Amino acid sequence: MKITLAQLNYHIGNFKANKAKIIHTLEEARERGSDLVIFSELTVSGYPPLDLLERKEFIDACLRTVDEIAPHCRDIAAIVGSPSLNTHPEGKNLFNSAFFLHEGKVQDVIHKSLLPTYDIFDEYRHFEPNADFHTLSFKGKKIALTICEDLWDEQPIEMEFGKSRLYTLSPMQELAKEDPDLIINIAASPFAYNRIAAKREVFTGKAKSYGLPVFFVNQVGAQTELIFEGGSLVVNPGGEIVGEMKRFGEDVRDFLLEEVSGAEEIKISDPEDYIPEIHEALVLGLKDFFGKMGFTDAILGLSGGIDSAVSIVLAKEALGAEHVHALLLPSQFSSGHSVSDAEQLAQNLGTPYHIIPIKTAYDEFEKLLHPYFKDLPFDVTEENLQARIRAVLLMAFSNKFGYILLNTSNKSEAAVGYGTLYGDMSGGISVLGDIYKSDVYKLAHYINREQEVIPANILIKPPSAELAPGQKDSDSLPEYSRLDRILYHYIELQTPVEEIIEKGYDEETVLRTIRLVNNSEYKRYQAPPILRISSKAFGAGRRMPLVARYF
Amino acid sequence: MKITLAQLNYHIGNFKANKAKIIHTLEEARERGSDLVIFSELTVSGYPPLDLLERKEFIDACLRTVDEIAPHCRDIAAIVGSPSLNTHPEGKNLFNSAFFLHEGKVQDVIHKSLLPTYDIFDEYRHFEPNADFHTLSFKGKKIALTICEDLWDEQPIEMEFGKSRLYTLSPMQELAKEDPDLIINIAASPFAYNRIAAKREVFTGKAKSYGLPVFFVNQVGAQTELIFEGGSLVVNPGGEIVGEMKRFGEDVRDFLLEEVSGAEEIKISDPEDYIPEIHEALVLGLKDFFGKMGFTDAILGLSGGIDSAVSIVLAKEALGAEHVHALLLPSQFSSGHSVSDAEQLAQNLGTPYHIIPIKTAYDEFEKLLHPYFKDLPFDVTEENLQARIRAVLLMAFSNKFGYILLNTSNKSEAAVGYGTLYGDMSGGISVLGDIYKSDVYKLAHYINREQEVIPANILIKPPSAELAPGQKDSDSLPEYSRLDRILYHYIELQTPVEEIIEKGYDEETVLRTIRLVNNSEYKRYQAPPILRISSKAFGAGRRMPLVARYF
Repeated sequence: MKITLAQLNYHIGNFKANKAKIIHTLEEARERGSDLVIFSELTVSGYPPLDLLERKEFIDACLRTVDEIAPHCRDIAAIVGSPSLNTHPEGKNLFNSAFFLHEGKVQDVIHKSLLPTYDIFDEYRHFEPNADFHTLSFKGKKIALTICEDLWDEQPIEMEFGKSRLYTLSPMQELAKEDPDLIINIAASPFAYNRIAAKREVFTGKAKSYGLPVFFVNQVGAQTELIFEGGSLVVNPGGEIVGEMKRFGEDVRDFLLEEVSGAEEIKISDPEDYIPEIHEALVLGLKDFFGKMGFTDAILGLSGGIDSAVSIVLAKEALGAEHVHALLLPSQFSSGHSVSDAEQLAQNLGTPYHIIPIKTAYDEFEKLLHPYFKDLPFDVTEENLQARIRAVLLMAFSNKFGYILLNTSNKSEAAVGYGTLYGDMSGGISVLGDIYKSDVYKLAHYINREQEVIPANILIKPPSAELAPGQKDSDSLPEYSRLDRILYHYIELQTPVEEIIEKGYDEETVLRTIRLVNNSEYKRYQAPPILRISSKAFGAGRRMPLVARYF
Repeated sequence: MKITLAQLNYHIGNFKANKAKIIHTLEEARERGSDLVIFSELTVSGYPPLDLLERKEFIDACLRTVDEIAPHCRDIAAIVGSPSLNTHPEGKNLFNSAFFLHEGKVQDVIHKSLLPTYDIFDEYRHFEPNADFHTLSFKGKKIALTICEDLWDEQPIEMEFGKSRLYTLSPMQELAKEDPDLIINIAASPFAYNRIAAKREVFTGKAKSYGLPVFFVNQVGAQTELIFEGGSLVVNPGGEIVGEMKRFGEDVRDFLLEEVSGAEEIKISDPEDYIPEIHEALVLGLKDFFGKMGFTDAILGLSGGIDSAVSIVLAKEALGAEHVHALLLPSQFSSGHSVSDAEQLAQNLGTPYHIIPIKTAYDEFEKLLHPYFKDLPFDVTEENLQARIRAVLLMAFSNKFGYILLNTSNKSEAAVGYGTLYGDMSGGISVLGDIYKSDVYKLAHYINREQEVIPANILIKPPSAELAPGQKDSDSLPEYSRLDRILYHYIELQTPVEEIIEKGYDEETVLRTIRLVNNSEYKRYQAPPILRISSKAFGAGRRMPLVARYF
C-alpha cells in the first residue's frame, strides 16, 4: 500500500485556497499511484480556528468543503480533518474529526478523544470528547486512526504536582483491542524548541509499545503566533524513525507500508542544536503572518541594539530586503555609535532606511507638559516619552504606506516589564517576544556564522535602552545570564519560588525578578501577538489575572 | 437551622485579606447564633485565579488558608470554596471544591462536576470534573451541595446548532437519589445585563423541579474585567424567590431553614430595566480595578463627546471627583463647542482639568514626516496622529503622577475598528468597551435623570471623532441604531450572516459591517481589558484568529 503524507500550509477559514491545495495534492498522488493520502488535523479550516468554530456558517463551510473533496477520492482514499456536528442532543456542538474519504464519498468519521485544554490549546471549549473506538478497514489492513493529542496520553507533566498523566484514558489502548496493522496520527502540533525530543518520543514510544508502524502527519506554517514545524514522521514497529519530512516547509512524500517495517533508522537533527530551528521558525512565522494578513512590507525602528538588529535580519529573510523599512530615531540620549551601527546594518542588508532625530518632538512635548510637571525630576515619564514619540513616527509610516510595524522586544524585557506601552511595545507582531536575551545573542552569532551581517559592535556593547544619560540595562536589572535562568524556572518550568532560591540564586534577586514579572501582567495584556517558539510564551498560552496580589 | 449567606468581595491571591474577611464573618455569624455560613466559589483564592492555579505554591497557600479557617469553625459550620488536589495518579491536577468545615476541621470535600469552558470560562484547563456524588449531613439534614455550573445543566444554548443541552450529566439528578432536604449552590457567576432573568430561572427552576429550597451564594465585586453582581438568592420549594441579597455590594444575611418553605415570594427588580444595573456594575468595576491594583486616581481625555462624558461621570462615582483628572486636548479640527461642553462637564462634576491644545505637537510631527510623506493626501495617518499625540500626553500624566488612564471607546467603535491603536484605544481599563453606542446614550440619559450632569449639548450633537474637517461618524459608519442591532446579532447571538440579512437589514450594510468586525481583530487583540457587562464582551471571552480569511 502506497501511503502519501501531505504536510501542507493552510490558511484559517480560507476554504477556497485550502480546498484547492488538498485537491491538487490528491490528483498528483493519484498519478503517482498512491492508495491513501493523509492530511493533517482540521485540514479544511486550518488549525486553530478558535471561536470561528462557534459560527454555524463556518461549520457549514467546513462540511461543504469535505463534501466537495470527496468526489476527488476515486481510485484513491484520503484522510481529511474537519470539525463535525455532534448529533447527540446533549454535549458540545462539535467533534474534532478525521473523515475517511473513498469511492467518492465519506466512508467513516473518527473523532478525537483527548482534547488538549492547557497552554495555547482550548479544544474542550468547542469539542465533545469521543468515547467510541473503532479502527478503519482499507485494502485488507486495519488502521488505528488517531488525532494529535490522542497519542499523547502518556505525556509527562512537568509541573510540580507529582502527577504522572494528564489523561485517564488511552485511545490507542482501546484501538489495540481490534488488533490494527498500523497507526496513523493527523496533527496540528506547534513548534517548541524545548520539546523537539519529547515530541519524537511520543511517536517512537507508541510504535514500540504496540509493535506497529506509525505515520504522523503534522500541519506546517504559522497561524498568527503559532508556528507549526511540520516534521512529519514515519516510525517502524521497532520505534525507529525511518522517515522525517521537511521542518518548516511544505512536503509531500510517499511511503510503501510494506517497506516501513524493514526500513532502517535515519539520522535526524540533534534536538539540542535548537538555535537554527528557532531561526527557521521565526522566518516562517513572519512570512506567514504577512502573507496570510495580506501584507508585503514591514517597518521597524533600528536602535543600534541587538534586538532590532536580529529582528531586521529575520524580516529581510522572510520578506526580502526591499520590503523591510527601517527608521533610525535617535534622541539626545542616543550614543553616536547607535546610529552608525544601525546604518551599517541597514547597508549590509540593503534595506531602505531613514534617520529622523526625535529631539524637536521631545522638546515640544516637554514644553506642552512643563506647566503641569514644572520642576519635577526626570523619571520614567521622560524615558517613556521618547519611546512613544518613536512609536508615533513608526505608526505614521505604517498607516501611510501600509507597512506592518514589527515589535522587537525580547522575552526577558517582556517578562520584567522593561518596555514602554504604546512605545517600544507597539507592533503588529512581536518577532523576539518568546526569546530570552541570552538566546537573542546566540541567534545573532548564528546569523553571523559565515559573514558579519550584524556589525560586531552591536554584539559586544552592553545592552542599553538609551533613554537616560549613560543608562545601561544592568543598572536596573540583574545580568541577563542570571535573569534568564530565573525567568525560565518561573515561567516555563513553573518552579516554586522557594525551590528557585534553593537552586543557588540570590533570594533578593529572585524575589525582585518575580515581583517585576507579576507587576507587569497589565503591560503584557496589551502586547502584540508573539511568535511562539517555546513551550510557554507570553500571550494566549499564559492567562494571568491582572488584579491579583501574589508575591 | 440558621443559615448565613456570606456574599463578599475577594481579591485574587490576597490570601491574608480574604482569610481575615472570612474569619471575621464567621465570628459575627456565631455571635448571631448561626449554624452554618456559606461562602462563594473559590472563596480563599477569589475567582477566577486563572493560571495562578498552575503554581504549586498558590495551591499550597489555598489549602493552608482553609486549614487556618477550620479552627474558627467550632460551634458553627462553614462551606468554603478552594481548589483541592486530585490525588488520583491520572487526570488534571486539581478539583474545584467546596470544603465543609465543622468542629474545627475539614469534615468533607465536594468537587465541582460541570466545568464551564466557554466564553470567559476556562475551568477544564485546570480542573478534573467530579463523578462521585454524595450529600452532606448536618444537624439531621441532608444537603445537596453544588458548585455554580453544577446547577446549570439545563441551560439553553443560544447558538445556532439546535442542541438542547451543553452537558451530558445532571449533578442534581445524582444527588437527588439521596433524598436531600435542601440545595446549596456556591458560585462565582459574573454579571451580564442580558442574562438577569435566565440566571434567576436556573435556581427557581431547580427548586421547583426537586421541591427543595435553594440557597445560592454568589461572589460580589470585580476582578479585572469581570464584574460579579452578588444578588445571592433564597428560593422556596415552590420555585419562588423569598430572599435576594444586595446587587453590586457585599451583604451577609441569616435565613431560618424552617421558615424558607413557608416564606412568601418577594418583589424583585425587572430584568428588562437594565440600564441602572449596567451603571452600578461599571461603577463597581472601576472601583475594584483601582482598589485591587492599588491605585487611587484616574486620568482621561475629555473630547466633548458622549463616551468620555459618561466615562468621567462613572469614574467620579467610583473614585471621587478629586481623584479623576481630565485633559482637554483640542486639535485644529475640534469644534469650539467640544472644549466648552467638556469644560462645563468637568465643572459640573468638580473634577480638576487642564486644556492642552495639540496643534504645535501635530505640526512638529508633520514637519518631521514631510520629507517622506511629501504631498501625499491627508488620510487616516493624520487622523491617527492626533489620537496618538493625545495618548502620549495622557500617558505622560499617567506616568508622572501615578494615574491610570481610562479608555473611553464604546463597543460599536471597538467592533468595527473605529479607533486608533496606541491612540484613543489606549488605557489601563476600558469603561464602555462592552456597551454599544445606543446604550451609552441611554446611560447618559439615566445619569441626567434628576439633574443635568452631562451638558445637554453633548447628548444632542451628532457623533464625531473630529479628526478631519467637518467629520461625522455617520460619514463612514451606518447609523448607530442599525449598526448596533447588526452587531448584536453577529457578536452576542452569533446569528449566521444570511439570517441577519433575512431579518430585514440591508445586505450591503450587513456585509460591510461584518467585514469591518473581522478585519479589526488585530486591533482588539491589543486593546485594554474591558469591563464586561454582557454575555459576550470583546477580550478573553471571544478568541478569534488574526490571520483568518473569513467573509
